[in-house]
Amino acid sequence: MSQRKLGRGVAVVGAGMSKFGCYNGMATRDIFVEAYREMLSSVDRGFDPHDIEAVYIGNYSGDLFEGQAHMAPLMTDWVGLAPRPATRVEDACASGSAALRQGMLAVASGLYDMVMVGGVEKMSELPTERVTDTLATASDVIYEAAVGFTFPALYAAMATAYLHEYGADPEVFLQVGYKNHEHGALNPKAQFGQRIQEIMEARKASAARKGLPIPEWKDEFEFLHDPRANPYIAWPLRLYDCSPISDGAAVVLLVSEDLARRFSDVPLYIIGSGQASDAATHDRSTLTSLPAARRAARQAYEMARITPQDVDAVEVHDCFTIAEIIASEDLGFFAPGEGWKAAEDGVTSLKGNRPINSSGGLKSKGHPVGASGVGQVVEIWHQLRGEAGERQIPGSPAIGLTHNVGGTGQTCVVNIFERR
Amino acid sequence: MSQRKLGRGVAVVGAGMSKFGCYNGMATRDIFVEAYREMLSSVDRGFDPHDIEAVYIGNYSGDLFEGQAHMAPLMTDWVGLAPRPATRVEDACASGSAALRQGMLAVASGLYDMVMVGGVEKMSELPTERVTDTLATASDVIYEAAVGFTFPALYAAMATAYLHEYGADPEVFLQVGYKNHEHGALNPKAQFGQRIQEIMEARKASAARKGLPIPEWKDEFEFLHDPRANPYIAWPLRLYDCSPISDGAAVVLLVSEDLARRFSDVPLYIIGSGQASDAATHDRSTLTSLPAARRAARQAYEMARITPQDVDAVEVHDCFTIAEIIASEDLGFFAPGEGWKAAEDGVTSLKGNRPINSSGGLKSKGHPVGASGVGQVVEIWHQLRGEAGERQIPGSPAIGLTHNVGGTGQTCVVNIFERR
Repeated sequence: MSQRKLGRGVAVVGAGMSKFGCYNGMATRDIFVEAYREMLSSVDRGFDPHDIEAVYIGNYSGDLFEGQAHMAPLMTDWVGLAPRPATRVEDACASGSAALRQGMLAVASGLYDMVMVGGVEKMSELPTERVTDTLATASDVIYEAAVGFTFPALYAAMATAYLHEYGADPEVFLQVGYKNHEHGALNPKAQFGQRIQEIMEARKASAARKGLPIPEWKDEFEFLHDPRANPYIAWPLRLYDCSPISDGAAVVLLVSEDLARRFSDVPLYIIGSGQASDAATHDRSTLTSLPAARRAARQAYEMARITPQDVDAVEVHDCFTIAEIIASEDLGFFAPGEGWKAAEDGVTSLKGNRPINSSGGLKSKGHPVGASGVGQVVEIWHQLRGEAGERQIPGSPAIGLTHNVGGTGQTCVVNIFERR
Repeated sequence: MSQRKLGRGVAVVGAGMSKFGCYNGMATRDIFVEAYREMLSSVDRGFDPHDIEAVYIGNYSGDLFEGQAHMAPLMTDWVGLAPRPATRVEDACASGSAALRQGMLAVASGLYDMVMVGGVEKMSELPTERVTDTLATASDVIYEAAVGFTFPALYAAMATAYLHEYGADPEVFLQVGYKNHEHGALNPKAQFGQRIQEIMEARKASAARKGLPIPEWKDEFEFLHDPRANPYIAWPLRLYDCSPISDGAAVVLLVSEDLARRFSDVPLYIIGSGQASDAATHDRSTLTSLPAARRAARQAYEMARITPQDVDAVEVHDCFTIAEIIASEDLGFFAPGEGWKAAEDGVTSLKGNRPINSSGGLKSKGHPVGASGVGQVVEIWHQLRGEAGERQIPGSPAIGLTHNVGGTGQTCVVNIFERR
């Protein structure tokens, strides 16, 4: 029935983020200020922040992580933007991208010309097991968490199914994590700014300092195979297959297309956007693909009138390494069952033909859940503007895509951006 | 900068709600189904639910109330609407109205022609003190909840300031609660379908059955003055000044204006909408008005090109009785400091000139927080269509307004509807 077309176009004219990591003793609102200030300074021609007309905030569960709900007006007030309307959007780990989509629709509706979209999460205040429980509330709790499923377990089920269905080599998971640490080491905002080799050397040095036996890992892959260094969390997924517990914030500024050049020399136009929902894992027909991701991608490609081959820069939701492989297939970059081979062949590294997660991805950059989707846009902003430094994708990328998953795919949002 | 005008108009063509109350042993998703089914049957000319293109869900904190976040795709799947995009919107107790506003913007953007907006909350599973704590996370926790403020206490501070500033008679609070029970007794969906007199008689009968001394209340106001029947919660607010702990759901169906008559003989057009944010109570210049409410109301009136006098039916956010009095001033129905006199004179009852909360309001209809804003629209739907039965506002009301507050006014959303 729908025309599936926006009333008017929308562009990104500013983007900033805090470093992702652990902010002990720093309030969430202050982390948000870091991202906000970087966004302000990223707007090429400057602007008066009071021209921002509305604010959307992606936040997964301030409620459970820190006992603070109603986060949108709080962040808005703290950066001096009250009384602007402030709305929190929650779609689990896809909250940031869902917030971006609401900001886009708000501008497209004609009601606002300039909207700020932020994402924020502070996860590190809870002990690890309570973080795991909190994340599990994004599953279908009655059918999944209540019978013992955690997110590592749900994704492990997908990994197992993938290995079984496609005869994939389980080594590939280690390689995806390794690759994302290689990328993240080039990203000053990444939580883990270290290559696996550096982590390994640091472990050796630490043992030496303490007078303990120095482990004899001969290379990074021996390190990754050692259960003392890289224990199984939920077979076949190990520690270095899992994104970390993170604090962080990210902010982007949206304006109507016709105003883009007033604020930015190199604006990014949102040329495609898709979102879909799905049943929870226990009630799904497949474990080797996220149907919501395929659907969201199709919508976004159709709106953008492009094919997967036209995409130059890609940030996908690698909450676990298996998720990146599945995403690379769901987005149409590789055929079903072929994504693992591409990963194993190095195709998805910065030196390959289809670089994925140049930022380091959720694995290495960090995964403050409500901020992650907006953080992906920040990476696309840098890549398409040629400002990504050492991790710059070669060939002057012009089209970028973000893929953000809530739960195990009960929500998926895909957004596509273009530098013209 | 903004044109403050929607790209295209939006209309409500269906509305339904569950009874508000306590649903022991019933899952939240099943309460939602009740509201959904009533919405379906309210669409005059019928329709195929699969034409619904997107779903917005207002929910305050499934996270804390029941350990279930990521509520939007869950509700969407349970009513058979997956894979439609499903997004949760949270602005504390204004979540429902904020969700309605996002649904409106999504249709106005041109992307969707038909959007469903729901609100849902299940609060009764937690013990009362944990409900109070959960609600307090909608305050600025660092500055308010952490030092002992609960929502009854915050609104009691406003009530105290109001009494002091305007020399108001504290008796007026009892009268507002009394009036809303009179209205709620006429609403089959209300949690408390009883007039205060009926509650008093029931208490006497219960004492008689148990062989206890029968209290000698000579009328309802003696009952309301008796601290055994109506104890102080936070002075000057007593039990019957406070909205209850509730479970419930409400759902409305939105379409683009040009399609309204295809689905409904009597659609309601959304002619005005406003939303504003504010600092939390501790950092605000006034306690006798909600600046965000005044601002949201001004935006909505300007968009609708009407004045307060043009409004026929009004649902306001009476989480506490003082809130209704302040709302009646913030919305421009009465001058500052005059609202209490109007309430005392009966002006705001169904028999008065400015009936407020014909549904019984949050006090008597119930306040399942994320559902309340959508529930207000359901009442306006019935009133403007002349379907409100015994509580029908006389004179064939044509314009209705909803006023929904998050926190103590960190969020306020005002929406205005018209039957043409």
